[in-house]
Amino acid sequence: MTLAHWQRRRLRLGMVGGGIGGNIGSAHRTAALMDGRWDVVAGVLSRDAVRGRQSAALWQIDPARSYETVETMAAAEKAREDGIDAVAICTPNADHYPSAMAFLKAGIHVICDKPLTTVVALADELAATARAKNVIFAVTHTYSGYPMVRAAREMIAAARLGTIRSVAVEYASEYQVEGAEGWQNDPQLSGPLGIVAGTGTHAHHLAEFVTGLRVRQLSADLSTLVPGNRLEDHASMHLRFSNGARGYLWNTTLAPGNANGLSIRVYGDKGGIAWHQERPETLAFTPTRGVTRLITRGSEEAGDAAGRVTRVPAGHPEGYLEAFANLYCGIADAIAAHQDGTLSGTFDFPTVEDGARGVRFMHAALRSARDGSRFVPLEDS
Amino acid sequence: MTLAHWQRRRLRLGMVGGGIGGNIGSAHRTAALMDGRWDVVAGVLSRDAVRGRQSAALWQIDPARSYETVETMAAAEKAREDGIDAVAICTPNADHYPSAMAFLKAGIHVICDKPLTTVVALADELAATARAKNVIFAVTHTYSGYPMVRAAREMIAAARLGTIRSVAVEYASEYQVEGAEGWQNDPQLSGPLGIVAGTGTHAHHLAEFVTGLRVRQLSADLSTLVPGNRLEDHASMHLRFSNGARGYLWNTTLAPGNANGLSIRVYGDKGGIAWHQERPETLAFTPTRGVTRLITRGSEEAGDAAGRVTRVPAGHPEGYLEAFANLYCGIADAIAAHQDGTLSGTFDFPTVEDGARGVRFMHAALRSARDGSRFVPLEDS
Amino acid sequence: MTLAHWQRRRLRLGMVGGGIGGNIGSAHRTAALMDGRWDVVAGVLSRDAVRGRQSAALWQIDPARSYETVETMAAAEKAREDGIDAVAICTPNADHYPSAMAFLKAGIHVICDKPLTTVVALADELAATARAKNVIFAVTHTYSGYPMVRAAREMIAAARLGTIRSVAVEYASEYQVEGAEGWQNDPQLSGPLGIVAGTGTHAHHLAEFVTGLRVRQLSADLSTLVPGNRLEDHASMHLRFSNGARGYLWNTTLAPGNANGLSIRVYGDKGGIAWHQERPETLAFTPTRGVTRLITRGSEEAGDAAGRVTRVPAGHPEGYLEAFANLYCGIADAIAAHQDGTLSGTFDFPTVEDGARGVRFMHAALRSARDGSRFVPLEDS
Amino acid sequence: MTLAHWQRRRLRLGMVGGGIGGNIGSAHRTAALMDGRWDVVAGVLSRDAVRGRQSAALWQIDPARSYETVETMAAAEKAREDGIDAVAICTPNADHYPSAMAFLKAGIHVICDKPLTTVVALADELAATARAKNVIFAVTHTYSGYPMVRAAREMIAAARLGTIRSVAVEYASEYQVEGAEGWQNDPQLSGPLGIVAGTGTHAHHLAEFVTGLRVRQLSADLSTLVPGNRLEDHASMHLRFSNGARGYLWNTTLAPGNANGLSIRVYGDKGGIAWHQERPETLAFTPTRGVTRLITRGSEEAGDAAGRVTRVPAGHPEGYLEAFANLYCGIADAIAAHQDGTLSGTFDFPTVEDGARGVRFMHAALRSARDGSRFVPLEDS
Repeated sequence: MTLAHWQRRRLRLGMVGGGIGGNIGSAHRTAALMDGRWDVVAGVLSRDAVRGRQSAALWQIDPARSYETVETMAAAEKAREDGIDAVAICTPNADHYPSAMAFLKAGIHVICDKPLTTVVALADELAATARAKNVIFAVTHTYSGYPMVRAAREMIAAARLGTIRSVAVEYASEYQVEGAEGWQNDPQLSGPLGIVAGTGTHAHHLAEFVTGLRVRQLSADLSTLVPGNRLEDHASMHLRFSNGARGYLWNTTLAPGNANGLSIRVYGDKGGIAWHQERPETLAFTPTRGVTRLITRGSEEAGDAAGRVTRVPAGHPEGYLEAFANLYCGIADAIAAHQDGTLSGTFDFPTVEDGARGVRFMHAALRSARDGSRFVPLEDS
Repeated sequence: MTLAHWQRRRLRLGMVGGGIGGNIGSAHRTAALMDGRWDVVAGVLSRDAVRGRQSAALWQIDPARSYETVETMAAAEKAREDGIDAVAICTPNADHYPSAMAFLKAGIHVICDKPLTTVVALADELAATARAKNVIFAVTHTYSGYPMVRAAREMIAAARLGTIRSVAVEYASEYQVEGAEGWQNDPQLSGPLGIVAGTGTHAHHLAEFVTGLRVRQLSADLSTLVPGNRLEDHASMHLRFSNGARGYLWNTTLAPGNANGLSIRVYGDKGGIAWHQERPETLAFTPTRGVTRLITRGSEEAGDAAGRVTRVPAGHPEGYLEAFANLYCGIADAIAAHQDGTLSGTFDFPTVEDGARGVRFMHAALRSARDGSRFVPLEDS
Repeated sequence: MTLAHWQRRRLRLGMVGGGIGGNIGSAHRTAALMDGRWDVVAGVLSRDAVRGRQSAALWQIDPARSYETVETMAAAEKAREDGIDAVAICTPNADHYPSAMAFLKAGIHVICDKPLTTVVALADELAATARAKNVIFAVTHTYSGYPMVRAAREMIAAARLGTIRSVAVEYASEYQVEGAEGWQNDPQLSGPLGIVAGTGTHAHHLAEFVTGLRVRQLSADLSTLVPGNRLEDHASMHLRFSNGARGYLWNTTLAPGNANGLSIRVYGDKGGIAWHQERPETLAFTPTRGVTRLITRGSEEAGDAAGRVTRVPAGHPEGYLEAFANLYCGIADAIAAHQDGTLSGTFDFPTVEDGARGVRFMHAALRSARDGSRFVPLEDS
Repeated sequence: MTLAHWQRRRLRLGMVGGGIGGNIGSAHRTAALMDGRWDVVAGVLSRDAVRGRQSAALWQIDPARSYETVETMAAAEKAREDGIDAVAICTPNADHYPSAMAFLKAGIHVICDKPLTTVVALADELAATARAKNVIFAVTHTYSGYPMVRAAREMIAAARLGTIRSVAVEYASEYQVEGAEGWQNDPQLSGPLGIVAGTGTHAHHLAEFVTGLRVRQLSADLSTLVPGNRLEDHASMHLRFSNGARGYLWNTTLAPGNANGLSIRVYGDKGGIAWHQERPETLAFTPTRGVTRLITRGSEEAGDAAGRVTRVPAGHPEGYLEAFANLYCGIADAIAAHQDGTLSGTFDFPTVEDGARGVRFMHAALRSARDGSRFVPLEDS
């Protein structure tokens, strides 16, 4: 018999990275806690051991479960009866591979920040290992957790837009206007790509997630416009999708006025949609020849997929942390199904395969940019 | 020595009302859980005993702590070593008084939904009892928890708008367009006021909270426009504030297109501000003779008060649940100070005194409406 | 046989007021010229004779037709074979009556700025005289010329909103934040009302024009909040309409951030609409239980009434001057019909009767405010 | 002595194309009439002689000056003492060259719709002829007439954004979602490019006009996505500017929800701006590290360039026709200076040289698209 989630114990989460001073760790934690389905119980919260212990204290983690290396942590947690069910990895890009591999080998489910890793071959190896070990592996393309992104995907799958012709996706932000900082400016830690790894992969994933199409070819112009930046801080791409649709992707961290400007517009022969991450509660839908309709989370027109991830009524804004929590709920459901032996193989959160596509996307952009922006196929990477 | 909050155990919360089928209970729970400072451990979750037990199971509450009456719960929890630190009351308006009184008498801190109660004398009695018992008593005017509402209050306190002259506050929604439902259409449960109790008190609190002024007099027109509605569903009020400023308050539940349209605009001789609950991350500020500036949560211009209740960077939307959670964090801080004996007497969340002002506001509106909309003083209620 | 307008000569317009330094005269002129249906050929453009001649030169008016008094102008133009067809009066409020009367008596059609005049009896006398002399008399409630205002009126007349329940109308601006200037602060020229005459009458007209309802009763709070202002600069009103609908009207000139903030929202049992003058091309329409639709000028859903006053396709913004020109086109049509003897008696522009209602509205507000904001009937004025 | 414009006679305008059934002719006429500086007195209003005469009657043009060919018209108007001062050419793209050449040779000033023509060599010939004949030649990139576009240009020229790094320009519309119609789908009349000629050239001009930079290289992907369309209906381009800045240009006519979606965003090291043609009264400006400021036409912050083309106060929307009229005022000023012999050689409207750059831009896009989207220099065309 399958138990409903509330009939089960809370799942136990470990964290790698994400401690004091980190950006994304506390968002993982809040997302996990919000719905009462996870506890955060263990971690290697910092590469610095002292800071790691302080972070563990801040998060009320038992000092005995505050580890100094992922290898120790994986082994110790695997050995405990009350060991972690899953680990969330929030370290710099190049550290994802070794960390994830340590937990995969211990048979512990993995939740990894994006990009999955920096090299296509390592990405493929992670995917293969996850399959071989029968371990759930999520990649936190957080923005796919927004209810109205789910609604957009559902509308397109139901052919509400007809045949998709054009996709415009952007990720413009402003956080490097005065220069890149920390590991994001260090090719050893970030890998060979800068903002395309850091934010462009979100845009690429969003475009594929919402449309259900695949980017087959792209032409990229990558530039480093701020003196002192070591990796690209500006990118534009022409996209060609699996069904022949065209698109562009614009990606920069140099755009004052764009706090976190991820947006997508999709146009088909029957209509168009527009969604912007900074105003996530509304999806604008314009049927061909018709007027624009502002579909809001919580409304009947938002549909079932959005309804499944809705906590409070329309007009009571849900935001980024709720979108993130929607991924954590989906992962918890999948782990429950895994425990019950009822796992279906399709997931409502991005997986290691999506993560590996992101790494292909990064390297296709690099190849195109190095060859005069000629079109290159994504799959060759 | 005072412990930081993360050095303490999580606080234990009980709930009265809020079970399956309720509107606001799950928002209380999510708000409490989100930051890892509370656990929900006990409750009388429904007036219906079966539904109460189901709700307890859903929220993973020990069946032994799922009670059938508030009196039983208050006594049992008071007696436990690990009894609840506070109770959240989410029942119909008229039930607030007896529930709150039961916990006050047991010395348990109270978090009560608004309006505090339906009668001025009972409101005053709750306030007096809380003082006498030295118990913390919060009233969940949730919207005061938004960072940019805190920013607005801080800007006005710092005289950024100069002398306040005019306040326009609205609470327009659409949920009764086809008629009021349930206890909200039952004067026995709602009390003598309908939407003014249900949403107008939020608008009144917001106006006083943001401006730091008091409504001294008001003129109200209350109407019941939907056939079958037993209480008012439309209200407009002229407001006169303590410093001579003027204002209006518009309140209806009959306005299609307004999911949850709470907004405030404040104008002084040095500038004006505008904030809308459905787009809570931005506060528009226009200095006299200047251009409008869109101040966003997470920006430096948002100021200290907003900064203290900010979880994620600008552009990563926070919303209603985070605003609610900000109240729960403030209450947790106050309870910690109470436990340490360092309670200051000023709170960053609405208290029983604010709740009692709301009840006065309701009754002033009723008196004015019954007397040809003449101006009446708020304090006479 | 009736000639189409383009088979006729251009109509000849005279102006009273509106010269150099005036606010509204050049808007009248541009509105008249834009569609090639009027020439401006005569005027008393300023109370100051020198400035009057300079203004005439600027507008390429024959010096012989630049007059010093309205009486001279009315007589001289009446006597010319090519005399003016109509006169536009753009002087301070208290001057409207004598100017209009001079031209009415000469049988010349009148286009008068609002408010019609300052006293109810004089307004009635103007209306009676216009009828007696069979002269067309327009009052420039300019905002009724916007295509999407016409669309709103048409939708409501077609019962798209069902029974109207609630009307929220505002006219908030910022031009007196640092004090009223010129004749607008002079009760001799403005009359007994300040901003309610200057902008409130626009809001009142818009509410009646869009809904097709009449304000039967109102309760007003009028305040003078800026030291040195001699007339009210802030007003709020409760409105009761002919069908039982309720409303409020908020009116101030002290609201930084509101350049010209005229807006209206109307709610019925079948849906609601919202329109804002600063974004005039879009009418938001939300059917009950449905999502908001952004109906734009130039779209099919905008309907026939909007279509008749549309010059350029959707997405090519039309604005204030085009709205004004729409009144001038309607007036030109009416004068053509008058010349042909085919005048129907209904007009698509505001007339002297609308103007007289505005004066009643002003005085009802004054009476209510002087009597503790009690409700007073509009018709008693 | 130089006469002020209002001391002069109105200028006389002829039209080629633009009659009944045309799209843009009536906009030219309204723009010319609005400010009282032009009369429309002659034309070849349609390729169809009957429709031409009907159109002339509609516009109150003397039948004797309604011509059947541009050659007849140019000769006859040149011969008249009261002949036209300038001609507006609103015919299909491929007709611009012969029409313009006829009037240039007659020494009559030319106002030509965009694109200037379809072939680079012909564009250069028009420019050379205009210089040789000392004739003013304007190309109606209408959008450069908007006050806030002028403000943006002025701000960037004053280094308010610092060094420009990135430019995002779009022209998305929806008018070919169901297929291209008429001459726009006919390569004989449109030339070798479809929407890049029709709307893309506006986007290119806007980018260069606002930034003061030149596009040096571009990479284009051109697609024909609607079956039956004979020319491209979707384009994306990577742009490289003269100072090293990067950009993208997105151009489509297949995007439901975009009535006329021309927009530009420019980012420098000191700040960013955003402007959208459908909301033309506001320019959003965000200084680096600061909050977004909404600069509106009519405000002091809008600056001198916007102020010079402002008719009515802030909050009274000006739109497309006023922007168009601003070009006509500038052209009238230039013709007056030409008549006075005081022409400076710099113009505040787009000229034949700008038009020729547009033709180069079109052909560069074509060359890049045909070569795998490789970057190509603009100047080679």
